[in-house]
Amino acid sequence: MNGKIYLVGAGPGDPELLTLKALGLLRTAEAVLHDDLVAPEILKLIPSTAQIHNVGKRCGKKRILQGEINGLMVALAASGLRVVRLKGGDPLIFGRAGEEIEFLRANNIPFEIVPGVTSAMAAAAVAQIPLTHRHASDALVFITAHRASEQSATDWGKFVSSGATLVIYMPGQNYSDLAKRLTSAGLSVNTPCALISRATTKYQRTHRTTVLNLHCAPQLASPTLLIVGEVVRLADPFALVKGFVPQITSGKGDRLPAPLFNDLPPTATGRTDQEPIL
Amino acid sequence: MNGKIYLVGAGPGDPELLTLKALGLLRTAEAVLHDDLVAPEILKLIPSTAQIHNVGKRCGKKRILQGEINGLMVALAASGLRVVRLKGGDPLIFGRAGEEIEFLRANNIPFEIVPGVTSAMAAAAVAQIPLTHRHASDALVFITAHRASEQSATDWGKFVSSGATLVIYMPGQNYSDLAKRLTSAGLSVNTPCALISRATTKYQRTHRTTVLNLHCAPQLASPTLLIVGEVVRLADPFALVKGFVPQITSGKGDRLPAPLFNDLPPTATGRTDQEPIL
Repeated sequence: MNGKIYLVGAGPGDPELLTLKALGLLRTAEAVLHDDLVAPEILKLIPSTAQIHNVGKRCGKKRILQGEINGLMVALAASGLRVVRLKGGDPLIFGRAGEEIEFLRANNIPFEIVPGVTSAMAAAAVAQIPLTHRHASDALVFITAHRASEQSATDWGKFVSSGATLVIYMPGQNYSDLAKRLTSAGLSVNTPCALISRATTKYQRTHRTTVLNLHCAPQLASPTLLIVGEVVRLADPFALVKGFVPQITSGKGDRLPAPLFNDLPPTATGRTDQEPIL
Repeated sequence: MNGKIYLVGAGPGDPELLTLKALGLLRTAEAVLHDDLVAPEILKLIPSTAQIHNVGKRCGKKRILQGEINGLMVALAASGLRVVRLKGGDPLIFGRAGEEIEFLRANNIPFEIVPGVTSAMAAAAVAQIPLTHRHASDALVFITAHRASEQSATDWGKFVSSGATLVIYMPGQNYSDLAKRLTSAGLSVNTPCALISRATTKYQRTHRTTVLNLHCAPQLASPTLLIVGEVVRLADPFALVKGFVPQITSGKGDRLPAPLFNDLPPTATGRTDQEPIL
């Protein structure tokens, strides 16, 4: 008798942001195939009796081909196991779930999809950026910079000119190229943006800047997201410098409320005062 | 001493899709302000000792003004309570969280944002639609039809011509107008789309059609989402007719696998065979 595959979103990193359903499935799994992006604290929830396979493609390097992952899933399910295919964030965005689903269907393997908290929501939550706003943005676009060089690369110009909030998954670490791509698409260099690295984990780092100064941003550890748009002005200035030495102090050494982003002129180095130094 | 406000995403409806963090906060809340979209099963998790305020705006009718919600939050927190502001899905999309956050900041009320599973992910999961796909769509757009008549209404043309998957929140029940808006924006009438109503609840209903035939779709109960794009072809035909009498039977009365969407010609009535009748 066939087992079953559960395509489960592991959420952004913090195990507290797993859904109750995901937790229940992990605790009763007989086999788990997980991506690199899944946090170690979450993998610890899997029973020691379960087979665990890391099928991640670290930093874009294909240690394992998609066909091999598909084959492994089918083989495990065909041997009657209750299999969790665990993906970072939500399983249906930028995760090749479509290809896995097609393969499972073609092989008559029963499966179920369990949605999760996607990284964009988590990044916005920790940086306190409302992704839509009545007076600033009434649309939200998720794109990835990962395929910049491929033919299928989306035309960012349309999104930029729409005025929507852009969330760029996998922006890479070449911030200079990224900024160039955004401005070539027509985005004003004064548009605020925020890099959020490893949101909701203890390694979380955020950095708020403008497209103009993005090239000066510190290299943050992946997974990272870039949120671009006027709504970034509404971010909490304190939330964005947590874990850093405050750059702005009063005469008595007290930490002062950081002014709103748009009040901060760039310094001579091209950085704003609000930009923390790693 | 001030209490604290937690802006919490309640997820799409199924209590199993709450995050562990949301559950913990609900169970220890002293006051809860919730929207209409939050499922009754989730409200049952709140302790009987907590104050519960329904601050929803049912069907767009403002029974309570945003300013009143803001005032109530601040008053409760100022009286030292641990307050959960509970929003359907994720708190930072289409929910006026931005305005609430600004008000809390202005009043020096400590707050924290807890992301949730947004309805788009839940709808896609139950209909088994991959929202992005290497060969079909590498971008995802969230828009709302709610503001169609307002000046700030987004120009859908840019999104349509981008080839991205569109997820339309609050599409309303005038499917004819909706289809007209999509085609005026340049979308081909043959583009597949799926209405998903009350995803992940026991009342869940889904209906797959094309933009051409959208006007014939049955009126589904809100909250509803419309997913538009080539990826809808990849949906599971069975998942989409759950709860309905199957329309396609063999000579022996067995249910046959419904053919893939793009194999189905429209019938004389403008419906496809796959479209269920309520």
